[in-house]
Amino acid sequence: MTSSTGAPGTDAGRRERKKAQTRRSLVAAARHLFLQHGYDDVTVAQIAAEADTAVTTLFKHFPHGKEALVFGDTPDEDERARSLETAVAGTGSLTAALEALRVFFRSRGLFQDDASPDEHRLLALIVSTPQLRVYARRQWESCESRLAAALAAEAGRVADDPDLRALARYVLQIPDLAADDADPRGTLDAVVDRLAAGWAPRD
Amino acid sequence: MTSSTGAPGTDAGRRERKKAQTRRSLVAAARHLFLQHGYDDVTVAQIAAEADTAVTTLFKHFPHGKEALVFGDTPDEDERARSLETAVAGTGSLTAALEALRVFFRSRGLFQDDASPDEHRLLALIVSTPQLRVYARRQWESCESRLAAALAAEAGRVADDPDLRALARYVLQIPDLAADDADPRGTLDAVVDRLAAGWAPRD
Repeated sequence: MTSSTGAPGTDAGRRERKKAQTRRSLVAAARHLFLQHGYDDVTVAQIAAEADTAVTTLFKHFPHGKEALVFGDTPDEDERARSLETAVAGTGSLTAALEALRVFFRSRGLFQDDASPDEHRLLALIVSTPQLRVYARRQWESCESRLAAALAAEAGRVADDPDLRALARYVLQIPDLAADDADPRGTLDAVVDRLAAGWAPRD
Repeated sequence: MTSSTGAPGTDAGRRERKKAQTRRSLVAAARHLFLQHGYDDVTVAQIAAEADTAVTTLFKHFPHGKEALVFGDTPDEDERARSLETAVAGTGSLTAALEALRVFFRSRGLFQDDASPDEHRLLALIVSTPQLRVYARRQWESCESRLAAALAAEAGRVADDPDLRALARYVLQIPDLAADDADPRGTLDAVVDRLAAGWAPRD
């Protein structure tokens, strides 16, 4: 976004704010309906009606429809990859990068300590709806090559090192791996510890 | 299979042999056409015609159609899971189980040393066709809970230990992880070593 498009007090600024408001209304309406009736029993027409907007407007803002509305407030693919790159930047070693990723995940989704009751209900809806579960997993997996390259930069290795592609993929599956557990943070910690020290300790 | 259904010299035995022959013809015809024209440009009707059988017969033997025909000779889900269970059975520790899994994969698919030129071409077709790549990945992933339980039995832990579910999932992704590499065996070895000893060695 350039400074001219969203500046307050300009027409462009008002348009940007109005668009953001419409997005928020659609996301709020979708989540309200999903939590009340379940994901599969809610239509895009119902969501548009609840948000007092047209179905065409819904699809203009959320081309992927219902799935994307569940994840409405979460970062898009590029932002997600960038947040992972930022998390490991400057760590200088795989040991430190894994610790940084542990901290990164602790503030997110299932691993948060301070999620609101509504966030908890939304996370439970995602975990229990196979289509949303796959969607969430793919969102993380789509960051594989960028996380692998970021890890390689910290470790002083080539960006496409298969060994670090594996590590990136494994880290990005932790949210899905932990989703069914009573204690997702415990699984996060256990798996990060194992990725650091291995499953066959030498001592 | 009970001893009466497939015994040689009986009607049932002849029927079983005829069915196996039809399956083999369909798989051979499908692979021949796929390798000649590419996966997407071959129809089930062409495959049935090449195997001199009806499309309904094709679907009776391969309800999943084209995808399943590519993998026609490979074990079904239950056999695949059982072969993994057999590989780790009696190893008695995660260290030994990981070594057993390394050996197991070395004799399979991409990791084989002694694949024929046709097998190589078929593997290349799978790796380069996204739909087949996903199908192959899912076949391995479907064994996750059984491999996790088998590892847990060797390590003396509960069958649904999340730490071993993670290890099982990670091991089962090695074929997909290594698929794009010039040296899949090198990746297999590197990743198994890392799963054993970790990405952040302590010495």
